[in-house]
Amino acid sequence: MKSILVTGCNRGLGLGIVKHLVNDTNPPQNVIATCRIIEKAPELREIAEKNRNVHILTLDVKNTDTFDRFAKDVESIVGDDGLNVLFNNAGYSPKSTRINMVKAEQLAETFAINTIGPIMLTKALLPLLYRAAAKNVNAPVSCSKAAVINMSSFLGSVELNTDGGLYPYRCSKAAINMATKSLSIDLKSQGVLVTCIHPGWVKTDMGGNNAPLSVDTSCSGIVKVIKELNEKHNGGFVQWDGKELPW
Amino acid sequence: MKSILVTGCNRGLGLGIVKHLVNDTNPPQNVIATCRIIEKAPELREIAEKNRNVHILTLDVKNTDTFDRFAKDVESIVGDDGLNVLFNNAGYSPKSTRINMVKAEQLAETFAINTIGPIMLTKALLPLLYRAAAKNVNAPVSCSKAAVINMSSFLGSVELNTDGGLYPYRCSKAAINMATKSLSIDLKSQGVLVTCIHPGWVKTDMGGNNAPLSVDTSCSGIVKVIKELNEKHNGGFVQWDGKELPW
Repeated sequence: MKSILVTGCNRGLGLGIVKHLVNDTNPPQNVIATCRIIEKAPELREIAEKNRNVHILTLDVKNTDTFDRFAKDVESIVGDDGLNVLFNNAGYSPKSTRINMVKAEQLAETFAINTIGPIMLTKALLPLLYRAAAKNVNAPVSCSKAAVINMSSFLGSVELNTDGGLYPYRCSKAAINMATKSLSIDLKSQGVLVTCIHPGWVKTDMGGNNAPLSVDTSCSGIVKVIKELNEKHNGGFVQWDGKELPW
Repeated sequence: MKSILVTGCNRGLGLGIVKHLVNDTNPPQNVIATCRIIEKAPELREIAEKNRNVHILTLDVKNTDTFDRFAKDVESIVGDDGLNVLFNNAGYSPKSTRINMVKAEQLAETFAINTIGPIMLTKALLPLLYRAAAKNVNAPVSCSKAAVINMSSFLGSVELNTDGGLYPYRCSKAAINMATKSLSIDLKSQGVLVTCIHPGWVKTDMGGNNAPLSVDTSCSGIVKVIKELNEKHNGGFVQWDGKELPW
């Protein structure tokens, strides 16, 4: 892939994915890494200083009314080649557990960040994704052509939900899974692949210290998976090691 | 069941369900029917005038900060028996279709009505549901004991999504399906059954004239289904004629 945009790169999985992309044997020409507040992303800034193919753009995925302006900034980086991959990674998980703790504002905030933001960002960047797909119109669908990857979670699988609780996070991820499926149908004729990924349970601020996977292992797997995505993954739900998950 | 509360009863399926409950061979002692604006629900008012077991309460499921006060109004009707069934029926579907038409406000509004409202109303009415369950502590779970029924849709099944589009509606229904699953786990120890129902594609303002099912056929089926709900339906997704649906 020539270009990839990853949201939420100040820390955790977003930062890890940027590192793995930069250190890949065949790194992208442009890695556009977004974060909300650039001053709070020192490690990302260091990577961008050392790697001329890394561009940092500020973006709050809740501020959907900034997306058209943001798309112009992205266009100024990717130009006529368009954008190959949009990776909607930025996410949020409030620390609520059972039904007696859940708050309406929490639910709305989590939908805004984990579901509405990714859908609206995809809409805003569609012309650039279509442009990239049109550049390789006869190639099979893949991340070298054009793709939208939504960071989901096994916690967004209704079938795998055996523990209950986690209303904001679970519901927002079930909803982005549904959006992934609709997008995979709606964008197919334009040659854009759409899939959602479960990163595994990872030692991040969100995943906590009990998580079995390191950021490095998860991100290494994710980058491998996205490079191998093909037609059969369109509208699918795949985890960091390539295993498919049920809805 | 002694008591059932149904939201969104001014028209369509909500009104139809109230009619079928009232005309049942064994009607509930209390049918609490909510609508946003009582002046816009003439048919419901007529039913309430003719049937002393029908109580109309005004409720906008978006106004979650009114729910605690609302729960007190419900308590004044059901008293020590508690509430047997909460039927989260009120719903909304914007007329958007493909990704290029979707708006952030539309998504947020649809989540507020179809997902956040039902979750928060369930939370607010939990003490009354628990009270009803405790009255029949040794009985098997059913709508005669205590249950939450969430109106979903086959459009909320990721697996059955072959047409794409409909982002606000589909995502909000996938999310309420997830909430149903979490609630079914979280409330199980208290004896409260939780399930979601697909009403079929029905000739309502939402379903349109091309729908194959009449309101009467759908609501007749729904009332039959809820009366037959048992342990095996907990956390399930069932349609108006009893058939189970995939997530």
